[in-house]
Order: sequence, then structure tokens, then C-alpha cells
Amino acid sequence: MREAMASAEVGDDVFDEDPTLHELQATVAAMFGHEAALFTPSGTMANQLALQLAVPRGDELLCDAAAHIVSDEIGAAAALSGISTRTWPAVGAAVDVAAVESMIRPEGFVAVPTRAIAVEQTHNRGGGGVIPLSTLQDLRSLTDRYGVRLHCDGARIWHAHVADGVPLAEYGALFDTLSVCLSKGLGAPVGSLVVGSAAAIATARKLRKRMGGGMRQAGILAAAGLYALRNNIDRLAEDHARARLLAEAMAPTGVVDPEQIRTNILPLDLTKARLDGTQFAAAAREHGILVSVLGPRLVRLVTHLDLTDEGVDHAAKILPTLL
Amino acid sequence: MREAMASAEVGDDVFDEDPTLHELQATVAAMFGHEAALFTPSGTMANQLALQLAVPRGDELLCDAAAHIVSDEIGAAAALSGISTRTWPAVGAAVDVAAVESMIRPEGFVAVPTRAIAVEQTHNRGGGGVIPLSTLQDLRSLTDRYGVRLHCDGARIWHAHVADGVPLAEYGALFDTLSVCLSKGLGAPVGSLVVGSAAAIATARKLRKRMGGGMRQAGILAAAGLYALRNNIDRLAEDHARARLLAEAMAPTGVVDPEQIRTNILPLDLTKARLDGTQFAAAAREHGILVSVLGPRLVRLVTHLDLTDEGVDHAAKILPTLL
Amino acid sequence: MREAMASAEVGDDVFDEDPTLHELQATVAAMFGHEAALFTPSGTMANQLALQLAVPRGDELLCDAAAHIVSDEIGAAAALSGISTRTWPAVGAAVDVAAVESMIRPEGFVAVPTRAIAVEQTHNRGGGGVIPLSTLQDLRSLTDRYGVRLHCDGARIWHAHVADGVPLAEYGALFDTLSVCLSKGLGAPVGSLVVGSAAAIATARKLRKRMGGGMRQAGILAAAGLYALRNNIDRLAEDHARARLLAEAMAPTGVVDPEQIRTNILPLDLTKARLDGTQFAAAAREHGILVSVLGPRLVRLVTHLDLTDEGVDHAAKILPTLL
Amino acid sequence: MREAMASAEVGDDVFDEDPTLHELQATVAAMFGHEAALFTPSGTMANQLALQLAVPRGDELLCDAAAHIVSDEIGAAAALSGISTRTWPAVGAAVDVAAVESMIRPEGFVAVPTRAIAVEQTHNRGGGGVIPLSTLQDLRSLTDRYGVRLHCDGARIWHAHVADGVPLAEYGALFDTLSVCLSKGLGAPVGSLVVGSAAAIATARKLRKRMGGGMRQAGILAAAGLYALRNNIDRLAEDHARARLLAEAMAPTGVVDPEQIRTNILPLDLTKARLDGTQFAAAAREHGILVSVLGPRLVRLVTHLDLTDEGVDHAAKILPTLL
Repeated sequence: MREAMASAEVGDDVFDEDPTLHELQATVAAMFGHEAALFTPSGTMANQLALQLAVPRGDELLCDAAAHIVSDEIGAAAALSGISTRTWPAVGAAVDVAAVESMIRPEGFVAVPTRAIAVEQTHNRGGGGVIPLSTLQDLRSLTDRYGVRLHCDGARIWHAHVADGVPLAEYGALFDTLSVCLSKGLGAPVGSLVVGSAAAIATARKLRKRMGGGMRQAGILAAAGLYALRNNIDRLAEDHARARLLAEAMAPTGVVDPEQIRTNILPLDLTKARLDGTQFAAAAREHGILVSVLGPRLVRLVTHLDLTDEGVDHAAKILPTLL
Repeated sequence: MREAMASAEVGDDVFDEDPTLHELQATVAAMFGHEAALFTPSGTMANQLALQLAVPRGDELLCDAAAHIVSDEIGAAAALSGISTRTWPAVGAAVDVAAVESMIRPEGFVAVPTRAIAVEQTHNRGGGGVIPLSTLQDLRSLTDRYGVRLHCDGARIWHAHVADGVPLAEYGALFDTLSVCLSKGLGAPVGSLVVGSAAAIATARKLRKRMGGGMRQAGILAAAGLYALRNNIDRLAEDHARARLLAEAMAPTGVVDPEQIRTNILPLDLTKARLDGTQFAAAAREHGILVSVLGPRLVRLVTHLDLTDEGVDHAAKILPTLL
Repeated sequence: MREAMASAEVGDDVFDEDPTLHELQATVAAMFGHEAALFTPSGTMANQLALQLAVPRGDELLCDAAAHIVSDEIGAAAALSGISTRTWPAVGAAVDVAAVESMIRPEGFVAVPTRAIAVEQTHNRGGGGVIPLSTLQDLRSLTDRYGVRLHCDGARIWHAHVADGVPLAEYGALFDTLSVCLSKGLGAPVGSLVVGSAAAIATARKLRKRMGGGMRQAGILAAAGLYALRNNIDRLAEDHARARLLAEAMAPTGVVDPEQIRTNILPLDLTKARLDGTQFAAAAREHGILVSVLGPRLVRLVTHLDLTDEGVDHAAKILPTLL
Repeated sequence: MREAMASAEVGDDVFDEDPTLHELQATVAAMFGHEAALFTPSGTMANQLALQLAVPRGDELLCDAAAHIVSDEIGAAAALSGISTRTWPAVGAAVDVAAVESMIRPEGFVAVPTRAIAVEQTHNRGGGGVIPLSTLQDLRSLTDRYGVRLHCDGARIWHAHVADGVPLAEYGALFDTLSVCLSKGLGAPVGSLVVGSAAAIATARKLRKRMGGGMRQAGILAAAGLYALRNNIDRLAEDHARARLLAEAMAPTGVVDPEQIRTNILPLDLTKARLDGTQFAAAAREHGILVSVLGPRLVRLVTHLDLTDEGVDHAAKILPTLL
């Protein structure tokens, strides 16, 4: 990947003249069957641009209460774009389509009109869970019926594609916009993309400049992204198997149910173990194992391409002893 | 009331020099056992000022998904103040305190921090339902435990006070801020107030000017408000009885359960009657009966001090025939 | 006026059903030759609604650096509506049309596009100065040429009309929107209006609700406003004469040039007198004379309909002794 | 530079664990004598973070009317951060400190309080002009006296340092915050930094995440930035000489005064040549010369490290023939 970066042909993307970025953007758009895509420095920016396209200031987005969009983007949707959000309760990656329908408010009644619905595939705080294709199809029917847009926070959509065997284009066809991430699972150093119609992406380009996301010779990052797309998608199956292996190792302690682990994320519920998340993460760190703390009793492990078999075996041996 | 308005002593409230406003604000503050109160042109502005005081831009407010704050204020919390909202499902006026607790996110973890919780008493879209005092006490304990503020959208708190016999000061003691309304049930022509600490209200005064709510000789409106507070609270019991009477008249059609009608609001669910809300409202209007349309199959009747016994009898006779 | 208020016919303006408001709004629209007008609780809200109509979030408004819009509305244009402002230097009420033209940035170049220009007639911080009709006509030509909207903060436009003898409709024809005020000079207790096309005002009605400016039985205030429009415009000439009289009384102290006093506002520049504004205002107050403090060395006197000949004589005698 | 990037040691900057970024940030902070610095994907984001730190929502920033902050950041200060701006007229890079002082509004008077002043060094739309050190020192005294912060949009501060021979730390000592750019003149592919106190930069880190500027393994970009800082500052003198050479070649056509060209920017005023900017840029492009169009009659040339002597000679020969 570093070689690809070192030899990348670049231009000034502020003037839309970087050939490697053009190639990356065209490649990703095509993978999802959309017209266009735009490179952004982060998944947060990709999501926020998609929301700014879909929801006028003051109007409403519906999503689940644990979605990255309302939980992990420092309130950007409201703070920067004035978007109202109402949420449905999060239960893993499950979506109760009838409950979502009951929340939609068509325009013309005395209420904030619902303009868009967002789902997260796979679901980060939902333990890397995968939303079934049929549920997404039902959501698309619903949003078509009400004239509401459907956005996919697809930072980890590659994992869903590998876990469920659904083609990326089949996912792409269901959404007005998607955000996808090249770092995290795919291993590129920097970058996400927002995917959509040519008109939407042209507007997103201007909005990206306002957000401070217009980068000059970003082609170097694009070269790494192209490398990652070509080499690192199929291998995610290995990350999934390793996460399952770790879950099985910890299952006896009651902090995780291996049946729930479908992709590369392992949330550990420390309530039963009566452990504090911060303390547990510190203990794991002493053994060289990195754990994210998501709440007083909630931590998260993630498997990724930089792990070795030895590292995974080490974690599988050590972590149960800390619980 | 018009006499009180015609003889009101006034001053320029932009410079905080209107004696009748001073009297109204002190009166309302004292009713709820708080230090101060501020007059606003609407309940929406009173709520929004309270939220601006409690929740820094980008941080989070929790409320139910049918709350006036997220449903009926044209998205002001997000659009004007950048406040993030996550919601719990609305079931009448009920509040599941354990479910609310599970949504709170303390500061310091990788998430938007929860700064305030808002409840609505009585609950407008919840059919005028009353939140039990014990539930509110549990919420206060919860918010104390997490260092989160508690706001009451108390536009109709007078109705809860009359229906449940809870002193206003007992309600007041549970909240950091309340908004209360002088029009609607109490019958004054214009005005709400936001109630809270002296420091909070001093800040709200500046924020009110930014929102365009600084009125000059508003003492005339304050005189009407004082009249309403002194004369029109106890008589709400009559409105409640009339709403119950209308509910009983319509009960056989299945659009409303009289047991659910605790105050002056009658939501009618037209689903069983297979009627369209807009058409039903038009038909009722032809008989001189005003009905609000809240959704394709949802309308609302409200009883208030301008109704006569004859008008109520008329509605009780006509409405069932339209269903 | 109190009689008119006490006998006003009212309805619920949240549902646009208040007949006295209808009459006020139609009257004001007609005075300025526009299709529609909307009542607001303050001049700040009237201005802000007009700006929200004219300038999309992030785009640009040009005005002078002392305009009420950028100086006295607590930053509402940026804080609530995300409107960018660039300003030209304020010299009384004068407008250098060529300098304004040089600031306009048409769409399509690498810059924030200019969408609207606002002027203030009469100009509050510009000492009640009047913008000549010919200057306004030049600005209208300019804005037509560039496809930019022209708004008038006309809180005191009645004074310009009386001072220069320009018909209100002649002013009205030059602007896309105007805000006008019923309190201040005209003496009604509360209220301003935003004036414009029927389509603009329909949108403003929804935006007003978001701002918390939807008042219920505001007809009582509208009755006072109608009374003020019918009785208190022509008498402004008296206020102007009194301001001139006071200016002449103070001229020897060098704090004001009577030639500059065209309407009812007297700014006093205390620099030469080496006086502190706050101390001077306190001294005046002890003699029953109210003075606004606008800066460390800048105060303002205003003449209005509640003054008596005795009061004006008293001020003319006392104020020079304090300087 | 590509080699440095290919061998950069990286970590996840979202968790502040990238060693190369640490080195870049510490290096830049030290160059300006500040405690800390933060990497951002663009100069726009660096400026916007500094403004969010300095100016509470609704309060005021003063800058000149041609500043990048109000002209070229798509209205971000108002749209995303609710910051009010008033501007003084731009005349090249000159700053009239007395005129700026007259615009400052201390807190406590009836006006939006001034919180910060921003200057641009060198000034992009001011033709690459350099603000003299003594002017900046006067501004610092002024802002100290009024308790107002001073920010430097220092995207091109390296050019001022080279042109005027002022040490970077001497500039740094005058400002509360600076933004500096690694691309543009210095030739790194991507990135800017915001520089300030440790406390300010800690807050900026959180705000950067909200803006979508949190990048993961940005160390690769940081390696390029470090290379640029070490190798490409002194050579800017060459760019300046080439710009002067081009200006002299075009001087006879009257579009530029060589005396005004102090750094690497050549604005061409096509008014006298009666040429349209877009047409001129197209003609130049046919000869392989890139020109930015800034207005109907205003274009800009920039000299930079990728130019060759032949390229500059070519431009010096061709451009006068197009005028």
C-alpha cells in the first residue's frame, strides 16, 4: 500500500483535478451502482454531508438511539446542520419496520416533517450486527411510500457484504446515499466516501469545502484506498472468524454470547463480571491488548488486518483471566 | 380580563421596567417555588429558552418521541440552538424511568453527553395524560444521580394540578426549569413564562432578545395573565368533566376510551371508524365544532373556558353521528 | 388606544383566525404597496424573518457596520440563521452606493455569494438620519442589476416619511421586504410587522412559529397598532421639532450639531465634554431624564409622544448644565 | 517527500496515538513559540476551529472585507458556528488600527460584544501583501487593552517571514491562535495546523471531530509536512523573485504594479485591458498557464515550487501578448 501511495499521480482536488481521486471515486460509485462519490477525511464528514443533502435545517431524521450519527459525531447533525432527530430504541442491529413507520410524519400536518431515515450497516454499537437484506428492502418500500430518503451509514458495509454474501450493488440500490470507510476494517490510512447521484455529489463537494474537508493532493490517500478496496475486502472473513474465536474463549465468563458475533466487533458487557470498563481496559493494555471503553460497564474489542495469529491466541488466553 | 388590561400600569420591558410584568413574573415564580420567571410571546419560546440554558450546542436532550419540543416547534431545538435529541417511544403520558436511564450517557465516554431530560405535563399528543407525581420524583432522583437537568414543558401543568390535586410548588420543586402557558387553558390572550433560578432567568432575558421575544409595554398582556391565574385555574375541573362527558358520548363508536381522558384533551383515533381526519374535521366544522387534525387518522378535541353547556351538549349529540 | 384594545375582536392567530390582526396586516401591506404583512412580537423578529427569507444559510448579507441587524440583535442573523455578514463603514445614515457595489460578489466565483443588502431608515445608531430617496433608488438599481435582494429595517420609517415627505408606498416600492415597528415612535405597546410578497409572508409565518413568535389572541395588540397607525404618524413632526430644540440647547457644549438632527434621535458625543456615558445617564436620571448609554462616551436621547412641553423645557434647561 | 511518507511511522490519531503527527504538531508549536498545535485536513478547518475557540455563538469577530475567513470558506463561520462578523474595508494587506479600534464594542453595552479580531498574513485577496510587524504589534496592544483575542490566518505566514525577515516566533508571540498551511507554498500534499495554548488545542481536538476532521493514520501526511517545513521554507524567496519578474513583464500592460508584488501572488486587474477574467484564464490555459478567476475582471497568478525557469520565462513571454 505504501508503494501505491509513493507512486500515486496527484493533482489539486480543490479544483477537482486529481486523477487518482477520480479513479477512487468512480470505482466506489460503480461498486454500489451509483453515479458518483466524493472523498472525505472521515466517516463523520461523509455522514454529515449526506444528511445535509437529505434534510433541510429544522426538518427531521429518524434513526436508532445507538446510531453513530447521533451518538459518536459530537452532535454534528444538530450543531452544524440544525437537523432534528427522533430515535427508535436500539436492539443490536435489528430494525422494527412497523415501529419506524409509526414514527414517520408526512408533511402537511402540524409537525416537523420527516425527511430521511438512516440505518447503520454493520452496526457499531449494535455489536457489529448485520441488518438482513429483507429488512432493508422493507425500509426502502416504506421510504418510497412516504417520500422519505434512506441513508446508509456504511462505514462497515464491507463486513455485512462478507458476512451475508450480499453484493455491494444490491445494498447500493436500496439507498439514496451511503457513506463508506476505507480505514478501519479495510486498512487504508485515511478516508471515507459519500456515494449518491451526480447532482447530490456536486452539492456535497461545495458543502465539503464549508466543513473544511477540501484537501489538495489527496491522491496519495486515494491510492491507498484503491489498494485497500482491491486487496482487503475478502480477507475480512478472517477478522470475523477471529472475533468469533475470541467470543468463544470468553463465553464462559458470561460477558458475550458468541452467537451474536457476526463480524469483527466484540462488545463485552461487564455488568455480570462486576467490572469497571476503564479498569478492565487498563488491565488489558498491560498485556498489550487494546480495548475501547464505551460506557461504565461496556467495552469493545475489534479484530483487524494488523493482528497476527499469535496476538489473537494471546488475547484469547489472557482476557478470560481478567474477567 | 379586558378591564384589567385596559387599566394596566406599563413600562418598557426591554429595559425591564414594566411593573405589571414584574408582578406577573414574581407571582408565577412564587407559585412554583422558584426564584424568577420571564414572560415570552409563546410556549415554544419559553421551552426553547429553557433548552438553550440547559444544553450546550451539540450536546443532548432526551425526551419522548411525541413531545411538543421535538414535534411541534418546527425543529427549533436543532435549527436554532443546535441541540441533539434522542427520544424514547411515547405511550400516552407514561414514562418508563428505567428505559430513560438506559439512554443517559454520562460525560467522558466516547459519546454525545446527555445534559437534560424534558417531560410534558399534561401531555398534549399523549391525550392530555398526567404523569404521576411519583414518576416525576423518580426522574428527579435519576437526573440528580447523573448530573442531568430536568425541564418540564408545563404548558398545561395547571390541568395536572387540578386533575391530580398536586400543589404547583410540589411540581416546581422537581424541575430545574418549567415553561407554563397563560393562553390555551387559562384563557389569557398571549403569553407563556419560563421559570427557574435567578441566574438562569437573567441569561434567558438576553437569549429572549436574540429570539425576537423582547416586547416593550407587554404589561397589558401581563395584566391579562394575572387575571387568568387568579380566576381561571380552579375552573379547569369543569373543562375536564366536559371532556369526559364528550368521551362517554363517543365511546360506543370506538374512537376513544373515556377512562383515558383525564383532562381537557380528547384525541380521537379514526382508524376503526375508517375515517380521514381532514374530512372528519370539515364535517364537524359545518356543525360549528372545531377539531384539530394531527395525522391522517388522528384528530383532537379540546374543552376550554369559552364553551357553553349548550355547545358541549351539541357536540356530544352531533359528533357520534359523524363517526 | 386602551379602549380600542379593550373592544378588539380576536381569534387564534396560530390558526390565522384573528380578524383584527388580519385588518392590521392588510392595512400595513397596503400602506407600502405590498401584498402581505405579518405581525411579530418585536422588530428583531421582523428583521430576522426577512433575512431568513432572503439569505440561505452561509450566504451573505451586506449592511453598514452600525446597523441594528448586526449591532443590536444579539447576533441573531449568524447565531440563529447562519447568515454571513460583511459591512461597510457607517457614517450617519449616508450610503456610498459605489462602495457597496464593490463589495457585491455575484454567484459563480470562488466566494460566498451576496444575496441581500439591508439598509436602516431612519438609522438608529446613525443619529436618526434619513437616507435620501435618490440613494435608495440607486441601491434598487444596483440590486436589480446583480440579482440581489434589498431589505429595509424600517422600524422608524415613519420618521423618514414625515421628515422628507416621501410617501410610504414610494419607499415600499423599492424594497423586497421591510420591517416596521408599531411601538417606539408610534406608541403602540407591542409589535412590529414584516412586509413583502404573499409567498414570502406565507413562509415567514412558519418561520415565525419556529422563532417562538406565534401568539394566540394577538388581536388586542393589533387593535393598538391600528390605532397608532391612524393617529400617531403625523404627530411625529412634533417629536422632530422637540429633538431639534434640545439639540440647539446643547449645541454650545459641543456634544451635538443641531444640523444633524433630522428626526427624534439625539446622539450625544461626550468625548469633548470628557464625560463617562454611564455617569452622565445617572446624573440625568436624577433629574427625571432618561438617557440610553450606547458606548463609553456615547449616549442617546429620544423624543416621543409621552413627553410634555414642560418635560422638554426641563431637559433643555438641565442637560447643558450636566455637560 | 514521497520517501518520507512511505517510511512514516503511524498510529491512530483519533486516539491521539500517531507518533509522526505528534512530531509535526510539536515542531510547528515550537516554531511559533506556542504550547500546542493540531493537524487539520484544510486551512478552512484550521481557521474555523480557531474561531470556534475564540468567539461564542452570536458574538462577534472583526476582520477585513476581503479576508479568506469571510470570503472563501463558504460562510462556515456563520453557517456552522453562528459567529457574527463585521468587516473593515480591505486595501491590500494594510490595516488601519485606529479604524479597527473604532469598531470594537466592549461587553456590557447594548451591542453584540466583539470577541476576536482576525488578520491574514500574507493576504491572499490582498495580492500576497505583508502586514508590517509594527502594525501587528499595535493590534496586539489594542486587543490586550480591550480583552479581545487576535487570530492570524497564517496560511501563507511563511511568505511573510521570508519577505520581511521576521522570525516565526516573533509573529507567534503576537497571536492567541494561528492557522498555518503545509500545502500551497510549502508543497506538502495535504494539511494545515491550528496553533495555540494547550488548553485551546485540547478543545479544538473535540471540535475537529465534530467537523469531520479526525483522520486515522494521518502520520503519512504529517511526514510530508515535516519534510516541507525542513526543506521548503527558505526557497520561497525564489517564488517571490519569480512573481516579481512576471509582474515586471506585464507592467507595461497596466494590469499590475510590480512595486506591489511582495510575495508569490500576482493579482491582475483586467479592467484597463477591458478583458473578461474567464476568457483570459481560458486563453492562458491554452498556453499551459494556470490562472485563477476571482471576479469578472480579476484573476490571480501564483508562483510555487513546481515551476521551472523555462515555465516562468514562457509565462513572462506569453501573458503580455494576451493582454
